[in-house]
Amino acid sequence: MPVKGKKTFNDSAIEQAVTSILFDAEGLVPAIAQQHDSGEVLMMAWMNADSVAETLRSGRVCYYSRSRQTLWRKGEKSGQTQSLVDFRIDCDGDTVLLQVDQLGVACHTGRRNCFFNAIRDDGVAIIADVEIYPDELYKP
Amino acid sequence: MPVKGKKTFNDSAIEQAVTSILFDAEGLVPAIAQQHDSGEVLMMAWMNADSVAETLRSGRVCYYSRSRQTLWRKGEKSGQTQSLVDFRIDCDGDTVLLQVDQLGVACHTGRRNCFFNAIRDDGVAIIADVEIYPDELYKP
Repeated sequence: MPVKGKKTFNDSAIEQAVTSILFDAEGLVPAIAQQHDSGEVLMMAWMNADSVAETLRSGRVCYYSRSRQTLWRKGEKSGQTQSLVDFRIDCDGDTVLLQVDQLGVACHTGRRNCFFNAIRDDGVAIIADVEIYPDELYKP
Repeated sequence: MPVKGKKTFNDSAIEQAVTSILFDAEGLVPAIAQQHDSGEVLMMAWMNADSVAETLRSGRVCYYSRSRQTLWRKGEKSGQTQSLVDFRIDCDGDTVLLQVDQLGVACHTGRRNCFFNAIRDDGVAIIADVEIYPDELYKP
């Protein structure tokens, strides 16, 4: 069901999008999520054809969880949803860039984005604070 | 050999970086390249342990070419190099974010970035112009 205020597409555009993507041998494509206005790279996850179609149909980002082997509607447990702003495919068709509006935090650690480990002269440093504790994100 | 003005690291930091990355069954990790100041996502490619080490040692981005099965020093043929500004690893250790300074264009089509196919209501649209023609980039 389309989400009010999100970018959604009709069946014809969705079919063209899915056809344009070169899914790998496991039927997956890497998808980069970027906050549309700040440019912050939030996370990278995987999509299959069904999750691409659902994302474009609903305007809410849906990935494919390789560990759970099922559709992963981002934020379905944590509430930290991603609304679709723009859906891009790269030159080779084998990577997707999702420009999104992230509600709250993208990372399961409670940080805004997942790329908080930075190489420094003395090794690997954590450069971002936890904004919402995981206990709060994943209440029983 | 370190490149003047690029961010480079010593052997100890490089070893910690390589150890922190969870390479896949083929020894590869996806690497997103982002222009460090504008936030533009330029491309996604793959790295193996050797290319991670060379990138951190030289300050110039080196990927692994899956098609050619060899190290791919970005810009070695086209001259469109990427200087390393920051090297980040995600929460799970299975994706890398390279913040870089891209010289010229990142895409082999001659566009600034690879994500120029955008889904629109009537299908897939090309939203970026060619800035340098491939004939100029890849002279015999």
